[in-house]
Amino acid sequence: MSSTLGTLFKVSTFGESHCRGVGAIVDGCPSQVELSESDIQPQLDRRRPGQSIITTPRQEKDEVTIMSGVENGLTLGTPIGLFVANRDHKPGDYKDMRSIPRPSHADYTYQMKYGVRAASGGGRSSARETIGRVAAGAIAEKILRLKYGVEIVAWVHSVGEISVSTDNDQEISRADVDMTDVRCSDRTVADRMMQAIIEARDAKDSVGGIVECVCRNVPSGWGEPVFDKLDAKLAQAMLSLPATKGFEVGSGFAGTTLRGSAHNDAFATKGKRIGTRTNNSGGIQGGISNGEPIVFRVAFKPPATIGLSQETVDFDGNHVTLEAKGRHDPCVVPRAVPIVETMAAMVLLDCALRQEAGAAFRPDSN
Amino acid sequence: MSSTLGTLFKVSTFGESHCRGVGAIVDGCPSQVELSESDIQPQLDRRRPGQSIITTPRQEKDEVTIMSGVENGLTLGTPIGLFVANRDHKPGDYKDMRSIPRPSHADYTYQMKYGVRAASGGGRSSARETIGRVAAGAIAEKILRLKYGVEIVAWVHSVGEISVSTDNDQEISRADVDMTDVRCSDRTVADRMMQAIIEARDAKDSVGGIVECVCRNVPSGWGEPVFDKLDAKLAQAMLSLPATKGFEVGSGFAGTTLRGSAHNDAFATKGKRIGTRTNNSGGIQGGISNGEPIVFRVAFKPPATIGLSQETVDFDGNHVTLEAKGRHDPCVVPRAVPIVETMAAMVLLDCALRQEAGAAFRPDSN
Amino acid sequence: MSSTLGTLFKVSTFGESHCRGVGAIVDGCPSQVELSESDIQPQLDRRRPGQSIITTPRQEKDEVTIMSGVENGLTLGTPIGLFVANRDHKPGDYKDMRSIPRPSHADYTYQMKYGVRAASGGGRSSARETIGRVAAGAIAEKILRLKYGVEIVAWVHSVGEISVSTDNDQEISRADVDMTDVRCSDRTVADRMMQAIIEARDAKDSVGGIVECVCRNVPSGWGEPVFDKLDAKLAQAMLSLPATKGFEVGSGFAGTTLRGSAHNDAFATKGKRIGTRTNNSGGIQGGISNGEPIVFRVAFKPPATIGLSQETVDFDGNHVTLEAKGRHDPCVVPRAVPIVETMAAMVLLDCALRQEAGAAFRPDSN
Amino acid sequence: MSSTLGTLFKVSTFGESHCRGVGAIVDGCPSQVELSESDIQPQLDRRRPGQSIITTPRQEKDEVTIMSGVENGLTLGTPIGLFVANRDHKPGDYKDMRSIPRPSHADYTYQMKYGVRAASGGGRSSARETIGRVAAGAIAEKILRLKYGVEIVAWVHSVGEISVSTDNDQEISRADVDMTDVRCSDRTVADRMMQAIIEARDAKDSVGGIVECVCRNVPSGWGEPVFDKLDAKLAQAMLSLPATKGFEVGSGFAGTTLRGSAHNDAFATKGKRIGTRTNNSGGIQGGISNGEPIVFRVAFKPPATIGLSQETVDFDGNHVTLEAKGRHDPCVVPRAVPIVETMAAMVLLDCALRQEAGAAFRPDSN
Repeated sequence: MSSTLGTLFKVSTFGESHCRGVGAIVDGCPSQVELSESDIQPQLDRRRPGQSIITTPRQEKDEVTIMSGVENGLTLGTPIGLFVANRDHKPGDYKDMRSIPRPSHADYTYQMKYGVRAASGGGRSSARETIGRVAAGAIAEKILRLKYGVEIVAWVHSVGEISVSTDNDQEISRADVDMTDVRCSDRTVADRMMQAIIEARDAKDSVGGIVECVCRNVPSGWGEPVFDKLDAKLAQAMLSLPATKGFEVGSGFAGTTLRGSAHNDAFATKGKRIGTRTNNSGGIQGGISNGEPIVFRVAFKPPATIGLSQETVDFDGNHVTLEAKGRHDPCVVPRAVPIVETMAAMVLLDCALRQEAGAAFRPDSN
Repeated sequence: MSSTLGTLFKVSTFGESHCRGVGAIVDGCPSQVELSESDIQPQLDRRRPGQSIITTPRQEKDEVTIMSGVENGLTLGTPIGLFVANRDHKPGDYKDMRSIPRPSHADYTYQMKYGVRAASGGGRSSARETIGRVAAGAIAEKILRLKYGVEIVAWVHSVGEISVSTDNDQEISRADVDMTDVRCSDRTVADRMMQAIIEARDAKDSVGGIVECVCRNVPSGWGEPVFDKLDAKLAQAMLSLPATKGFEVGSGFAGTTLRGSAHNDAFATKGKRIGTRTNNSGGIQGGISNGEPIVFRVAFKPPATIGLSQETVDFDGNHVTLEAKGRHDPCVVPRAVPIVETMAAMVLLDCALRQEAGAAFRPDSN
Repeated sequence: MSSTLGTLFKVSTFGESHCRGVGAIVDGCPSQVELSESDIQPQLDRRRPGQSIITTPRQEKDEVTIMSGVENGLTLGTPIGLFVANRDHKPGDYKDMRSIPRPSHADYTYQMKYGVRAASGGGRSSARETIGRVAAGAIAEKILRLKYGVEIVAWVHSVGEISVSTDNDQEISRADVDMTDVRCSDRTVADRMMQAIIEARDAKDSVGGIVECVCRNVPSGWGEPVFDKLDAKLAQAMLSLPATKGFEVGSGFAGTTLRGSAHNDAFATKGKRIGTRTNNSGGIQGGISNGEPIVFRVAFKPPATIGLSQETVDFDGNHVTLEAKGRHDPCVVPRAVPIVETMAAMVLLDCALRQEAGAAFRPDSN
Repeated sequence: MSSTLGTLFKVSTFGESHCRGVGAIVDGCPSQVELSESDIQPQLDRRRPGQSIITTPRQEKDEVTIMSGVENGLTLGTPIGLFVANRDHKPGDYKDMRSIPRPSHADYTYQMKYGVRAASGGGRSSARETIGRVAAGAIAEKILRLKYGVEIVAWVHSVGEISVSTDNDQEISRADVDMTDVRCSDRTVADRMMQAIIEARDAKDSVGGIVECVCRNVPSGWGEPVFDKLDAKLAQAMLSLPATKGFEVGSGFAGTTLRGSAHNDAFATKGKRIGTRTNNSGGIQGGISNGEPIVFRVAFKPPATIGLSQETVDFDGNHVTLEAKGRHDPCVVPRAVPIVETMAAMVLLDCALRQEAGAAFRPDSN
């Protein structure tokens, strides 16, 4: 188990889907930041189940409580305990699955790794584990916004084969994204995405998709070569999310088909700073932010738990037919949007703190 | 700077391209392993420049010396110091570039981050930094092979638009891969890849590509939820390599277009163990290995340093035309193959050690 | 802030003395261990205030709840959330001290470090923070006992100038220790210690003391050279406790006055194993356990918060006279005993896990 | 093995006493610091064997080479590789000890832990391992001095029963300390210490001692509660040194005999800042520096390797008489002085970097 991420802004999460609750400890949060539950709850609300017709009908309010680390509305610099109670337990839904590992789910691997697993609901591999991350990352978002004006916006880039053009990505706001339940600001494309999700759900099936994220106003200099490059830490953070299968930054996989002369981002003056004319680098060069928007995409597979019958074997190797009960998302990407944003914030703030540490020793710093 | 990777098998690298040398410290290597330079040199030879007509003509022998941690041919359990001297210095090649940051290179971001940068050759962002990784990872490979029979083979999946079918990936060996200079076992495709690289080079340009990697015989249970999932750590390791833009595991980005019913890997008995009929999961479920081959791909952009003239600005914002001198690879993927393999080994061995630690406490372990 | 200790058995604590509660996340606990609150509560009861006439009369039940990581009485291998609510708030007690930093307390340094501090009660520097540690360490104790038979017993070695002889330390049990309120098994000495504490309390003063701890049945081989030597990690753990001023292992400071010929622990056969005739090493040689009992001592200063009037200055530099109100321990060592034991357990289990990881790769391991 | 210390200023050491050499990688060193070998060599010279009649007559020049991370006399922010070759090999000296573990030495525990050990000279438990630390810590010293004016001076407080009064410790300089071979600024006491060491040596025996260290001009606010308290990290660092048995800060063990009213350090105005009238806290309260001098002591046992014959058993349990050959220090404290200083510097700079990171986010920072 390694449930802690970060070097200076450290987030440790805990909780399964059917224990008393889930949460996180945020250690290393700067002091004297104005903070209350109302800074955190909005991203949890965007993540919670039951928020629209295309998410699981499970209802959980997911109300966060700050347990420690804040007094009189200010962070103390001490660990911030964050807690969300679990309420809507229906472990019965999972009863049939005790002896049958769900295909492409973590049932089998948890059992192999630990010799035991949570009785229901996927345990730590459940999407519910991400609540602690979202709560912690929401704090990081606020600090990044206050100190640097950093703005992080993610949206659904594709559902199955249906994708949105990203020409105007620099102008998309969270309000734009939230205008559709599917979290895609292009209403026409969003309608088709909705349709695809509903069709999958009605077929007791599921569908995958891609989330795109842009981080604006990130100063140059963030990211620690060589193993903690900014893109390497973002990749780790995103691949640590349930159901992810890929990460790409800037030109990504498509960029491999270009020649260097077409791919290179030539420098140009942009007001007082030097910037790049194009952004195939996705805002990161040599693992360090260059001042351009950071752009990356995360691939989410179709959810493994589906109602359709599947031919598989149980833990004893007997052939069985599995039809999952329970209430599951037919597509995770709409709810993944705030998760991707808050994970990005967590990584960025940790890099910011590390960069400030070294920068304080620069001859030009005092 | 964070030049250390791993929790128990820890690798710390050091060295720029034009200092006295490059290398690594491997801390946490199990004791009593037979080890000599000859276990390490082969992967360094596959990585070194000047090995074929499609790599940089720079000649460096890159001979490794074990400085510590091995006595009488056995590892002591103490840190293994690995060192490779730098020899073929031509800093003059870089003179013109002192005041001009190369587009899409790390010159600009290192300067912004540190307020100073290596006088030439890209410093820590240079491919030369990977020598320490390859040397350290070669040790991991040997241990994984001896104890678990793990076999790691990577190859060039694509160069520009030219890609190889991966139907027979389960049978490819390193010997197959090394039969062509481009490191693709399909000779017909390899010839076309060679042609593409030579054309790019002759045009003073460069071209990108994708490396695919398979890790066979990995036991189930490796990988630490939630932030140190096996795929998350592989993603971090791969995105920490110079010139990488993306990582995907199993079905990857393409898998997002499938429905769950098509994507799910149904379980089946395979001899005495339970396996999966398909492998869209790429051998990892919930961040933990499931006993199937681990399969992933890494996207490498076209090298940034090209001889073609580029319109850009210098550090003072003046418009300039840059034509890089120096000797550079027109395409990095052939030499990236051993780097990807050894980085994968490093991650896998660290996961193996962590899994063995916990497993020792299982009721069924004694 | 760094509220996390351990490499594989990682404990992160959170909570101030006057927020909603205190607790810990235990990450990396082996799976399939039988565990319930009743394994943890006894050590919390030995730590809690109000347990005897020589501790603060503050009453807190300090009942622990396992929030996650355990199901059907077995650990899942996932993070174990531990929580104890704060109940007996009397922040009014601290009102006078808002503008006056208590001498030798952390009021001043927290304010300097964070620019803010908990309104009352010392925040994270409060003894209350140790609740999370004790709860987490109680889990480590159980695992060490089950798997290795490790037995950890600490006791009050001295209060002020009154100290106990340690000739029979190898036979002292927790039951022996708990026969006196002061936690010293020698009743005569214990009575004098009690008297000293009561005198200090009645004088509105406080008094210091030393806790000694022995860890029996620790196998040889635990501890990681060079920076994570077993004694180095114990020293860090103990000096991380509030009010500690020193740590010594084996012969300690007194050992510096001996010659090597008198200090050296000659080897001898002990049944089937090789042991040492004397134990000036305190069970650790070169940072690694040698199979003999691990013996160390921890110095605790007299508590800083006293009722006697003190001449000092406030945060603005004005001369003031401070007479602390509130309810405080006149001597911390009786309640420190279970804290020292559980911290030792935490360190030992982390070392055990690390040793098992490497040992699994030894040629003689399968 | 864990040969890395530090969170932001990370030092990893490597090397046994009889391999090719010893050294360290310093990762996270601030950039643009003027640095050359001449900044490092003086502390290595104070550490090296053969420097006076009371150290081992072994001659090693211990000349350091900076392998990477510095260019044109400035640090690049990249890892600094430090290397010192081993020259004066006499493994023959150790031949007799192959099958006999030296009492109170690490021979036995290394063998138990790793199932193998360095053929001679103690391997990683050798004092020679500290070369990498001293070299790395000398860099930290320079940075602390340049940026904060921090001044670190250690001296020999005692040899055996002979100790120096520490009344004037605030004025002792390194020059004062180095005026005697034994590194005690009081010449009369120093002469007696010399005599004690020579007597022990002539008796083929050894003797212990205590090193005291003061760190002046450390700003308030350094140290990270709760596990990385400044005194906790100093304790870990000091107990990680070979032959250490204890650590105490400020009043230390003696402080346990005082009452709070006598022990408390009342605040007082000191020029523009608030300081304390006494310094029983040793400059640290609640794990955080308070602006007063940091004062601590480290206990070193008498060296285990002595020429006197010792009755012991070999690895097979046979009774044997051991008379160590080889050339060993009869007392380690004179050479330990620079080691203690540089280890303290390493810990302090890491804390400084961490504090600067958080401080950059304080509302009053810009």
